Amino acid sequence: MPAAKLQNRIVTLTTDFGLSDHFVAAMKGVILGIAPKAIIVDITHQVPPFGVMQGAYTLAQAWPWFPKGTVHVAVVDPGVGTSRRPILVEAGGHYFVGPDNGVFAMIYDGQPHKVREISNRKLALPEVSRTFHGRDIFAPAAAHLANGIPPARFGKPITDFIQPALMKPLQTARRAWSGTVLTVDHFGNLITNLSASQFPQMSEGNFELSVGLRRIIGLTGTFSDCVEGEPNAIIGSSGYLEVVVKESSAAKLLGCGAGAPVEIIFYR
Amino acid sequence: MPAAKLQNRIVTLTTDFGLSDHFVAAMKGVILGIAPKAIIVDITHQVPPFGVMQGAYTLAQAWPWFPKGTVHVAVVDPGVGTSRRPILVEAGGHYFVGPDNGVFAMIYDGQPHKVREISNRKLALPEVSRTFHGRDIFAPAAAHLANGIPPARFGKPITDFIQPALMKPLQTARRAWSGTVLTVDHFGNLITNLSASQFPQMSEGNFELSVGLRRIIGLTGTFSDCVEGEPNAIIGSSGYLEVVVKESSAAKLLGCGAGAPVEIIFYR
Amino acid sequence: MPAAKLQNRIVTLTTDFGLSDHFVAAMKGVILGIAPKAIIVDITHQVPPFGVMQGAYTLAQAWPWFPKGTVHVAVVDPGVGTSRRPILVEAGGHYFVGPDNGVFAMIYDGQPHKVREISNRKLALPEVSRTFHGRDIFAPAAAHLANGIPPARFGKPITDFIQPALMKPLQTARRAWSGTVLTVDHFGNLITNLSASQFPQMSEGNFELSVGLRRIIGLTGTFSDCVEGEPNAIIGSSGYLEVVVKESSAAKLLGCGAGAPVEIIFYR
Repeated sequence: MPAAKLQNRIVTLTTDFGLSDHFVAAMKGVILGIAPKAIIVDITHQVPPFGVMQGAYTLAQAWPWFPKGTVHVAVVDPGVGTSRRPILVEAGGHYFVGPDNGVFAMIYDGQPHKVREISNRKLALPEVSRTFHGRDIFAPAAAHLANGIPPARFGKPITDFIQPALMKPLQTARRAWSGTVLTVDHFGNLITNLSASQFPQMSEGNFELSVGLRRIIGLTGTFSDCVEGEPNAIIGSSGYLEVVVKESSAAKLLGCGAGAPVEIIFYR
Repeated sequence: MPAAKLQNRIVTLTTDFGLSDHFVAAMKGVILGIAPKAIIVDITHQVPPFGVMQGAYTLAQAWPWFPKGTVHVAVVDPGVGTSRRPILVEAGGHYFVGPDNGVFAMIYDGQPHKVREISNRKLALPEVSRTFHGRDIFAPAAAHLANGIPPARFGKPITDFIQPALMKPLQTARRAWSGTVLTVDHFGNLITNLSASQFPQMSEGNFELSVGLRRIIGLTGTFSDCVEGEPNAIIGSSGYLEVVVKESSAAKLLGCGAGAPVEIIFYR
Repeated sequence: MPAAKLQNRIVTLTTDFGLSDHFVAAMKGVILGIAPKAIIVDITHQVPPFGVMQGAYTLAQAWPWFPKGTVHVAVVDPGVGTSRRPILVEAGGHYFVGPDNGVFAMIYDGQPHKVREISNRKLALPEVSRTFHGRDIFAPAAAHLANGIPPARFGKPITDFIQPALMKPLQTARRAWSGTVLTVDHFGNLITNLSASQFPQMSEGNFELSVGLRRIIGLTGTFSDCVEGEPNAIIGSSGYLEVVVKESSAAKLLGCGAGAPVEIIFYR
């Protein structure tokens, strides 16, 4: 690349590598070696090991807040070393690089998108290991994108990429849906898959939500309006219905975690 | 902003958001979208949930080491969604942005300071959520400051900001003070609120310090002079008296944590 | 320094400071104050407290992936405050700054190197504390290196630096070696000190490896070829033999951690 083409694009990283090993740093070294002006931002490295859907959720919540042109790398990759394909996704003016295993499912779900298989080995490290594609394929791909290499150079469009059935609410009666807890955040709040956009009718007193052994009646406006020691339902900043306990952990109080079932019944 | 005004000022972040969710990354995306040349540095995101005073301590220890002009964002914000005010503090040539809840108390305590309520909604995101002012108000405010927008544009000076009675040592007799453990560091060292500047007379053999069920006589010079397996008192790099156990955890040995009482009695 | 000399060199950090205190941020503030164009990258701050050898391993795995000219700071420093020397190492076109306690042992081991004692106090902070050389000596040294100050300015070459006997495999019979688990990674994989370069003959069925109470026969190609629920031996991306359990923790299954003995016997 001629140096004049170098841009200082942002590259974000979402992995299940944790922070105690050398893995994340090796990826950053590779990125900065290829794209010295890249600005690297960690989304998280604490996706539960092999938690493809939890990685998908966290990335989906974070990426829209970055400027257009940002390159997002997601490495939650139980299939590394198998024939699962490395892919490059263009959506919403952003780029996404990672394995074709559903980690970008929530991006496909929200907007038009173009997916390519990354097949151009000249844009990977000269030697590709069997177990660390994050460093050997995805980091260099992200760095080359940050340098302005056009997506078409990476490989051909594909249409048979993995689109897992996301855990969407299932209607069980005229006014009842069964859903699930997508994830538990750092404060112990339970994030459900019941979204304000799907259920705009959610209001203060017009539904009951069953979660664990508890029943919650209607929405509470803010954290500070919550009844202390009791579970409350609020629309979180993510746009999903969250079950929260004021200054405490709903996950602990209710004994619930990711994957726990919830049920919502509207009164009218 | 004209691009020519963009500066590469440092923006630091201190929160209780942890590192596993998207919250911190969303703030960084917002900052870089407004201030592409900002250099973002994490102070910590592991303040105990809602631990305003522990956040205040960590920020107080870190900020003086940054160059003048740095913008420090602190989001430890149990009152988000209530009428607590967002504020901007100027002190020591630095800027501080966060909720008016005492998280900047140790900054007020140490030097002249000017405090403003952040009321100019044009310097926030167009849509402000009820639960995530870190992203919607504080991150954009910090980014605009990093871009060189003058503090007066954010809002009017206020004088009735929150100044909690910090846990300062209380004199209990002619040569005796009762104090407290401010925080426990990563190594299990107990950081007390007895400072070398308040007690310059602390020396090798001229006081006893009671903590937990133990009594420690006088200062030890360095970690390596410490008696193994025993609690020792040293003046830490923070300037406070710390109780340490060589290559081990004082918090575990003494069964003490943040908030534990300590007592110092000088012999002469 | 004239501003024209400022370079945007990378400075990496490897410490046992954890992420909850102000220590890492204070180092970053000092670095950016001296070298405003430095790009700071965390390798890890989760080296076990005082784990010099585990810090040495993690740094050894990460540094080769960074571009030449990178400055690597390692602060795993049980001897801070004693007479142990601060050193600057040049090796492989990179710079290394930290205490002379073996944390750079794996760098000496791999290539030609020149070691200097850092004795020029003008390149440290004006006031050096007894307990925080990471901030007061190593951070400023790294920043000045990043600014282009030549190594000779820091101090004189030394040859009596600490070179601990690394835990290398010991030959116990004609075809048998006894080795050790160097570290456990985030996924619970056991990284042994048996390297593919020392034992190029390792193949699918030609050896047995004893670890904990289990015996593993030969290599498995990739994670996905592994038998579920059983320990498998693979050559990891680090080039060392690793004991892994598919989508689970080998450390838990085998009850083994860093320092556990392993034995390899080749059949032919």
